[in-house]
Amino acid sequence: MTSATQGHRSPLRPRIAVTMGDAAGIGPEVIVKAWQTHPELFENAFVVGDVAVMRQAASLWARATQVLTMPPTMGQHHTRSKEQIQLPVMPAVQLPQPIRAGTISAACGAAAAQCVQLAAQMALRHEVDALVTAPLNKEAMHLSGLEWAGHTEILAHEAGQAQGLSMPVPVRMMLMNPELKVVLHSIHVPLQEAIRALTSASLLETITIAHAFFKRYLGRVPRIAVAGLNPHAGENGLMGREELDIIVPALEQARALGMVVNGPYPPDTVFMSARAQNGRPGAPDVVLAMYHDQGLIPIKYMGLEQGVNVTLGLPFVRTSPDHGTAFDIAGKGCADISSLISAMRAAAQLLGPVSEVRAAS
Amino acid sequence: MTSATQGHRSPLRPRIAVTMGDAAGIGPEVIVKAWQTHPELFENAFVVGDVAVMRQAASLWARATQVLTMPPTMGQHHTRSKEQIQLPVMPAVQLPQPIRAGTISAACGAAAAQCVQLAAQMALRHEVDALVTAPLNKEAMHLSGLEWAGHTEILAHEAGQAQGLSMPVPVRMMLMNPELKVVLHSIHVPLQEAIRALTSASLLETITIAHAFFKRYLGRVPRIAVAGLNPHAGENGLMGREELDIIVPALEQARALGMVVNGPYPPDTVFMSARAQNGRPGAPDVVLAMYHDQGLIPIKYMGLEQGVNVTLGLPFVRTSPDHGTAFDIAGKGCADISSLISAMRAAAQLLGPVSEVRAAS
Repeated sequence: MTSATQGHRSPLRPRIAVTMGDAAGIGPEVIVKAWQTHPELFENAFVVGDVAVMRQAASLWARATQVLTMPPTMGQHHTRSKEQIQLPVMPAVQLPQPIRAGTISAACGAAAAQCVQLAAQMALRHEVDALVTAPLNKEAMHLSGLEWAGHTEILAHEAGQAQGLSMPVPVRMMLMNPELKVVLHSIHVPLQEAIRALTSASLLETITIAHAFFKRYLGRVPRIAVAGLNPHAGENGLMGREELDIIVPALEQARALGMVVNGPYPPDTVFMSARAQNGRPGAPDVVLAMYHDQGLIPIKYMGLEQGVNVTLGLPFVRTSPDHGTAFDIAGKGCADISSLISAMRAAAQLLGPVSEVRAAS
Repeated sequence: MTSATQGHRSPLRPRIAVTMGDAAGIGPEVIVKAWQTHPELFENAFVVGDVAVMRQAASLWARATQVLTMPPTMGQHHTRSKEQIQLPVMPAVQLPQPIRAGTISAACGAAAAQCVQLAAQMALRHEVDALVTAPLNKEAMHLSGLEWAGHTEILAHEAGQAQGLSMPVPVRMMLMNPELKVVLHSIHVPLQEAIRALTSASLLETITIAHAFFKRYLGRVPRIAVAGLNPHAGENGLMGREELDIIVPALEQARALGMVVNGPYPPDTVFMSARAQNGRPGAPDVVLAMYHDQGLIPIKYMGLEQGVNVTLGLPFVRTSPDHGTAFDIAGKGCADISSLISAMRAAAQLLGPVSEVRAAS
């Protein structure tokens, strides 16, 4: 994402801000464990969070990790010794101690949101290239009086503000794993409502957002495969008319704008087919799913731990692990780090062209 | 399926009738190729079809196969030599020659339907244990004046007739592969309509049909996992009320009748979870999907060639390969036999307890 590097000294590794998430959830634990076991993924990364919380997590689950307080200005390259992993923390919040693991609290909810806002603002000022966000808890945020539905709403709001807009920027959720990338047209609404809300205009927006993201990421016009809504993609109107009335017109409009979109394809084979073609010449770069489960069933089918959530439509890269705060196991040391690892890898992968641009310049 | 063996001499291998399908499609080709390459799967099986058509197919694609005309009475065990595979054909139809491969014709459509009807009647008279059906072509059937939507409707009608009913018996479609079994609550209807048609009564019928099938197949009360309709299975009404208003009451009624049903589970993880648990103690035996693509996306995700279609609700086992007549490649010799092989294996697997009952008796 070249826009993130303009006017800045550019180290080769992308600069990634990792937000702490809800301090009572598994966020701090998975961060310190992942940092210690996979230090190569965290070169030039730092946490946005609470220094004491991260220190506590390191003392419990990652003893070889030294938690450092960062100055609030960026630019220095971190030094590391081979014996000790250094984990720099940008002190964004200071929570009252002790934190009760697994317990919903207004303080932790508000702090988690604040970390995300600060990190987003840094990304919007091009001080970091990407955000990787540990899970926050909606109930805890609501308890603190914040009305955010989740990360995405905070990030879309901050991006809108930075552009001088009174509205959040339009965003879409993408899920990716090593074999498939899926953009969801709609997410957390009843299936009935997802069907009713499917319009040519909103679908064209989804296609445009996906096109812009993949064009930046790949450096070429991406190939987008669009799933139908109905069985067999409606079979020419025999099993539903949304394909003919809504999806096809949106695809025609997108093509008139120079985008490469194919479909609508039968939903039961388009994901399988994209997976089977993955990496081959001419394979679709991404599949657009018409509703939540249509896209999430194939993404999750092979196992949750590989799933990464990416927000498209923002002027920076944002990935997150595909799990929640997991209050039921928080504080026990048994949280799985693989989804956070995947989220770090995905951020680096999506930023890949940046690093190459930097190295060449 | 013990009912299929009552009052009969019982050879150890299940007796399987393989219907020829549309003679202009890939049915005859995949049958002769599969028979020659996997003769062990076809012991005590026979084709219901056109002797000349099967002979023509064998001469083209399975030279070591000798096509025999069967007497219309059953009971004899076929003899085989090691050099030559014998493929017995029950002469159900005689098509005008030559058949034009890849061309829709009323004669082939009518003949294909007639083979299915004859095979179903044999199964209903307990002369065979299972049907494996090669693909027929709906357009060709319609051209011949037959109004059947497909195999399922023919079989449900014949089963109803045999029970003295004026209506077809209620049936459901199940898809299975080595790692997952999914029963579809609804199939070829627009998604809007699938949601509208979801009622507690119809869902209880789906559960009852699945329960009865798996109880016979497994010899114990099966564990049935039920998917929700909405994202996150509605999250207590936040994302849709069908779970609370329709699915939960149906599950309660089923439990009151002694069935073991769990759910409704979030659709995006229930299939993944059943796959991951497959074969472990306590794993669900089958997952009920609320609509076509919810169940078919996970079944097909790992590759079409392993998918088998099973009709539940009939008094006999019926499996079919998960592909159509493939008129575009018919007559070329390049059709893939793996789905028919899987359908034969699945029929034998589902009949497994029968063989054991027979061996013990």
